[in-house]
Amino acid sequence: MPESLLRPLPPMDSEPMRAWVEALERIAPLLRERLEAIRVIEASFGRTYESDGHLLQRTIVTYRPWTTDLLRASWNELFVFLNEKKALRCPHCGAMGAFTPPRRFNLMFKTFMGPVEEESALIYLRPETAQGIFVNFLNVLTSARRKLPFGIAQIGKAFRNEITPGQFLFRVREFEQMEIEYFVPPGEDERWFEHWVEERFRWYLRLGFRAENLRRREQSPEELAHYSKRTVDIEYRFPMGWGEIEGIANRTDYDLRAHSKSDPRNEHSTDDLTYFDPGKSSHITPYVIEPSAGVDRIFLALLCDAYHEETVRGEKRVVLRLHRDLAPVKVAVFPLLRNRSELVELAQRIAADLRRVVPGRVVYDDTASIGRLYRRQDEIGTPYCVTVDVQSLSDEQVTIRDRDTMEQVRLPIARLGDYFAEQFRREASLVG
Amino acid sequence: MPESLLRPLPPMDSEPMRAWVEALERIAPLLRERLEAIRVIEASFGRTYESDGHLLQRTIVTYRPWTTDLLRASWNELFVFLNEKKALRCPHCGAMGAFTPPRRFNLMFKTFMGPVEEESALIYLRPETAQGIFVNFLNVLTSARRKLPFGIAQIGKAFRNEITPGQFLFRVREFEQMEIEYFVPPGEDERWFEHWVEERFRWYLRLGFRAENLRRREQSPEELAHYSKRTVDIEYRFPMGWGEIEGIANRTDYDLRAHSKSDPRNEHSTDDLTYFDPGKSSHITPYVIEPSAGVDRIFLALLCDAYHEETVRGEKRVVLRLHRDLAPVKVAVFPLLRNRSELVELAQRIAADLRRVVPGRVVYDDTASIGRLYRRQDEIGTPYCVTVDVQSLSDEQVTIRDRDTMEQVRLPIARLGDYFAEQFRREASLVG
Repeated sequence: MPESLLRPLPPMDSEPMRAWVEALERIAPLLRERLEAIRVIEASFGRTYESDGHLLQRTIVTYRPWTTDLLRASWNELFVFLNEKKALRCPHCGAMGAFTPPRRFNLMFKTFMGPVEEESALIYLRPETAQGIFVNFLNVLTSARRKLPFGIAQIGKAFRNEITPGQFLFRVREFEQMEIEYFVPPGEDERWFEHWVEERFRWYLRLGFRAENLRRREQSPEELAHYSKRTVDIEYRFPMGWGEIEGIANRTDYDLRAHSKSDPRNEHSTDDLTYFDPGKSSHITPYVIEPSAGVDRIFLALLCDAYHEETVRGEKRVVLRLHRDLAPVKVAVFPLLRNRSELVELAQRIAADLRRVVPGRVVYDDTASIGRLYRRQDEIGTPYCVTVDVQSLSDEQVTIRDRDTMEQVRLPIARLGDYFAEQFRREASLVG
Repeated sequence: MPESLLRPLPPMDSEPMRAWVEALERIAPLLRERLEAIRVIEASFGRTYESDGHLLQRTIVTYRPWTTDLLRASWNELFVFLNEKKALRCPHCGAMGAFTPPRRFNLMFKTFMGPVEEESALIYLRPETAQGIFVNFLNVLTSARRKLPFGIAQIGKAFRNEITPGQFLFRVREFEQMEIEYFVPPGEDERWFEHWVEERFRWYLRLGFRAENLRRREQSPEELAHYSKRTVDIEYRFPMGWGEIEGIANRTDYDLRAHSKSDPRNEHSTDDLTYFDPGKSSHITPYVIEPSAGVDRIFLALLCDAYHEETVRGEKRVVLRLHRDLAPVKVAVFPLLRNRSELVELAQRIAADLRRVVPGRVVYDDTASIGRLYRRQDEIGTPYCVTVDVQSLSDEQVTIRDRDTMEQVRLPIARLGDYFAEQFRREASLVG
C-alpha cells in the first residue's frame, strides 16, 4: 500500500479505524491488479476518467466501514459496492455514488463484413497500417528483388476508439498514418535505428519546422510497447504542450515471426516470413525499424509552426510561413487597378504563362484592393505575389513581392519564367 | 402475373388446380412488392441469391395446396410457410426447404464511436464522399469567395457492404472514391451536365485509354437514383464485360435542400445551403452536377488497357503500355556488362544525374542480362531504358530504347538531360 494513500487518513486510534486500515492493506494488491486490468472508468454523467490509481487514491479513503468479505469480491462487485455506499467521489464535480459500473471498452472499431450481422462476419477496422506490410513481406521480397536492408512504405487510414479524443486534429478516432517498415539484418538493427531517428528528425527540419519546437524523446522502459526494443518519439511543441508527431521503433523480429506459420500465435499463415541471406547461405528473420507518423498531427504542427502574427505599419499582419514546396498556392498575380482592362488582361496573361512554368497553383485575383490581396495571400502562405501596374504597360516590368520579407523587386516580364523556374527548381525541392 | 410464371404449370383441369391459380394470381402483386423491398435471400447452406424474380419463378410453382390465408401473411411469414412446406427449391443444388428465413441486410458498415458499445454511439462508415461536401458547402463558399459555377472535389475511402463482391478490384467493400460536386445556377444544369460528360470522357482518352474500350451509357429512367434527373455512366470493357468506372449525375438541388434547416428531412442543420446571386439579388439553391469515379476501378481498367502480349523474335513479350505520366518508373539505366566496373560506375552516375531532371523514378539495375532487364521494365511499363556499353566509354554516347516501338537511338550522354526534360516536359503532362 503506497504511503500516499495512507497519509490523508485521520489519526488511527479507534478499533474500527484499525480494522479498516487492516482491510485496506489486505485489499491493496487486489486493487492494484484490477487497476492494471481495467484501465478506465466511465462516469455516469458522461465523463470518462483514466483510473491511473490517482482517482481511486483520492476517493476510496472517503469510505470506512469495510468488511473482509470484500476481499473475495470481484473488482466489479467491489466497485459497485463502493459506489452504492457513496464511497467513490467524482474528483471533478464532487458527486458521490454517481459512477456507472465499470464496462469493457472497445479500443478498436468493431463491424460486420458482409451483409448479415453475425459472429462469423465480425471484423475490426485496422488500428495501424503496419501489419498489412508484414503480411505482404514475402510478396514484395520476391516481386521486387530487394536485398537487405530495404523498406516498404505505406500511407492510409487507421481507426482507434480513443477514449479522450480532442485537441483539434491531434487526437482523433480516424486518422491518416504513414509508416515505413525498414527490414535490416539482425545485429545491424541498432545502427539503422540511429540512422532513421536522425533521418526523420532532419526531414522535419527540411520541411521548415523551427528547431526549437522539435525534440527527440527516448521512451522509458515502462512506456515501451511489448514488441519494441527501443522507441524514440519526435515531439512538437504544440500550443497545448509537447506532443508526439512520430515514433521510431525497433520492433525487432517480433512481427515477421508472429505472422509466420511456425509461430504458435498464428493459425492462418502458410509461410515463414524469412529472407535468404546469400552471404550466409541461410534464412534469417529480418529486424524491423519502423518510423511511424500521423499525417494529421504533422499537418497541425505545420500550421502551428508557420502561423505568425506581426505588426506592420500599426496593423496586424497574419502570415503563414510555409515552406515553398508546401504552400498550396505558389504565385498570385494581381492587377494594381481592376478597372483598367489593359492591366487586367496583362495580369491574366502573365498568370496563364506562369502556370506552364511553376510546379503548383498560380492564381489570379482582382477582387479587392492591392493591400487586401497581399494579406489574403500572406494568410494562406503564398510565397510570391506579382503585381502589374500602369508603368508595366510601358516598361514591361512587374513587381514581385516576397511573403516573408515583404521586399519588392521589379523584374522584366520576359524574365519571370526563368525567375520562378529558379525559385521552384527541383534541386531545391523536397520531392524526388 | 407474368405469363412465364404460368407457362410451366400442368394442365389446369382440376378444381384444386383452379383454386391454386386463382390464389397465385391474387398473391402476385404482394409477391412483386416484397421482391422489390427485400432484395436478397440467404440460403442456409451459406450461399446468397439475388431474388430478382427468376429464383422464385422457378421454385414457387413446385408447391400447390395454397390457401387464401396466405394473402394476409407478411412476406416473411409467407416465405417461412413456403419453405416449411418444401415449396422453395434451391436453383443451384436442388435442395428443398433448406432456406433460412429472410433477413435484413446491412448495406452500410455499422460500428460504435467511442469506447462503449451502446445505441447512442451507433455510427456507419460513409457509403459515399458526396455528403461531406454538401455539409461543408457554406464553409467553402464563404472562405473561398467563389462565384457560380464552381466545384468542390474530394477523394477518400467509402465503404459498402456489397452482397456480391468480386471481379478482382472491380467490386469491393472498401474502395477509394473521387468526386466533384459542381455547383451551377438552376437552369444551366443541363448544359453543364453535357460539359462534364464530355470533359470526363476526354480525361480517360488523355490517360491513354483505347477509345474502343470506352463508352458512354445513358441510365434508363428505371435505373436512375431517386435524386437524379439524369445520369450517364462511363464504362470500360473489362475482360469480364463492360463495367462502370464513373457516373456523371445531375443531382439537381436535392442534396443542398435536404441538408438545409428548412427541409423537414433534416433535424440537425442550422443553415440554409443557398447561394446569393448578385445578378438577381436573391438567394438560390444551386444545382449539382456530380462526376463520381472509383479509383480502384480506374486502376484496374488502366492495367487491363495497358497490358499487351506480343511475340518478338519467337518469344512472348509482356508490355504494359502505360501513359508516360502514369508509369511508376520513368527511366531505367543499365550497364551492358555488370562485371566491367567502368560501365557500372558510368551507368550509376547517369542514373543519379537523371534523377535531378526526370520528374519521377529513375532506377539503376544490373542484376540480369540486358534482354531480361529490358523485359522487366517492359512489364512494369517503364517508357525508356538507357544502356551503357563499352563503346560509351570512348564515344560518350549511350543507347536509349523506347518501350513501345523497341526502337533504339544513340545519344551523347551530355544531351540526355535535355532529351528527357523534353520527353517529360510539363506542357505534355497530364498534371497542372
